[in-house]
Amino acid sequence: MQSDAFQDVTAALARLGGQRVWSLLVSVFGDLAQARGEAIDGPVLSAIMSEMGIRPEATRVALHRLRNDGWIASEKSGRTSRHSLTALGRTESAAASPRIYGTPVEDADDWHMVLTENGDANMRAQMHTKGFVLVMPRLYIGAASATPPNDAMVLTGETVPDWLRAQITPQNLTADYEALAPILADIDERLPRSAGISPLQSAVLRCLIVHNWRRIALKHPRLPRILYPDNWAGTTCHVLVARLLDRFPRPHMSQITGP
Amino acid sequence: MQSDAFQDVTAALARLGGQRVWSLLVSVFGDLAQARGEAIDGPVLSAIMSEMGIRPEATRVALHRLRNDGWIASEKSGRTSRHSLTALGRTESAAASPRIYGTPVEDADDWHMVLTENGDANMRAQMHTKGFVLVMPRLYIGAASATPPNDAMVLTGETVPDWLRAQITPQNLTADYEALAPILADIDERLPRSAGISPLQSAVLRCLIVHNWRRIALKHPRLPRILYPDNWAGTTCHVLVARLLDRFPRPHMSQITGP
Repeated sequence: MQSDAFQDVTAALARLGGQRVWSLLVSVFGDLAQARGEAIDGPVLSAIMSEMGIRPEATRVALHRLRNDGWIASEKSGRTSRHSLTALGRTESAAASPRIYGTPVEDADDWHMVLTENGDANMRAQMHTKGFVLVMPRLYIGAASATPPNDAMVLTGETVPDWLRAQITPQNLTADYEALAPILADIDERLPRSAGISPLQSAVLRCLIVHNWRRIALKHPRLPRILYPDNWAGTTCHVLVARLLDRFPRPHMSQITGP
Repeated sequence: MQSDAFQDVTAALARLGGQRVWSLLVSVFGDLAQARGEAIDGPVLSAIMSEMGIRPEATRVALHRLRNDGWIASEKSGRTSRHSLTALGRTESAAASPRIYGTPVEDADDWHMVLTENGDANMRAQMHTKGFVLVMPRLYIGAASATPPNDAMVLTGETVPDWLRAQITPQNLTADYEALAPILADIDERLPRSAGISPLQSAVLRCLIVHNWRRIALKHPRLPRILYPDNWAGTTCHVLVARLLDRFPRPHMSQITGP
């Protein structure tokens, strides 16, 4: 029963699309072996990828690509390959981690708006990097923790009208969040405990959840929840992702053996 | 000496242009006979207009026009005409008075910005009427006493950058204020006391000051002084207008006789 549920939900996550194998590997290493000195042995990686339904040949090709990109390094230890993130891969993974793993509770509801003197592309890129969302040319909104540029005008307010929520919600990503949310809710309901989930299954669940969450969440700055509409699918996903990653802890690599 | 100074400054004010006679009459009645029941007798009006250098024929034509516009009513009392504002003229004069006679000290420095949901022409007109200045489409700034529309987003801030001051200052009117300011400063310097100024001269000074001030000031909403650049000519004019109108009080019509 537990096993059927696991098969169903991993299949549903895989069906969401956007599962390019090299990108999936980025999620796997980012989640399971991000710290300096951590690595994933070849057989463990094969077991994880195979459990996700990825063919060994596809994994080999993707590993090759990521080595060429300087993201992953592989070394032989006897007959076993060990794969790990390079300094570049670690840096980039670490940069994305706060957005991926930040829990909804860390979202203080304080926000501010920022009016900039000019509205050129440089400024827009700078503000996006700082975590601000464009409301209008030269006017941005962001968490109070996002630092405005020097000489910008900082504005705060008491209330947020619904029409503003509608304007700053990334409408183009709402459909993606709405596709992900029921699958996460299904995992939450059908796998209410980690008991009976093997370390390998836990690793696979985590990586598929992180992967499908990250490919949407990293496309827009995270604003305080109060700035999104009530019951917005993006918020629902965030709450469920945090809950499920907490429920299925990161296994130690040595615990993972083939299925 | 006093008399030379009076001639010089009234001539300087008259030279500023924008002295259409009907418009000058609107200033005269608005300043000297705005209250219900007040009127200006024909000979008194002739003395004032003549002192301003307006020919009797031009005054007659302008009075005729204002009667046709329903702004002024004239009645005969024996051989003397009495002219007064109509209800319309009184209402319109009263509507403009806070802007014309408001002293700079009444300008609390509190302000707010308002973001509206839509930026159509109706909204822009509504916001202008409420005393807001457009910063960008949908974004306005105004005194804290200006009431935002329902469902608009109200924003406040701690500091105002200079570039915003430059943006919201009515640049097209700055030259007009810069032309008026030295004349007002000259009056302030050369006529430091009301002693020696006749009631007729006081009436003429007031009307010319009000007239030249109103034709600029009524073209833009008044923002708190903190939102204008330091030493802006508009602020200089406002301070001087308030000081001079206080120095040369409104004479009673019965005090005024021909020169």
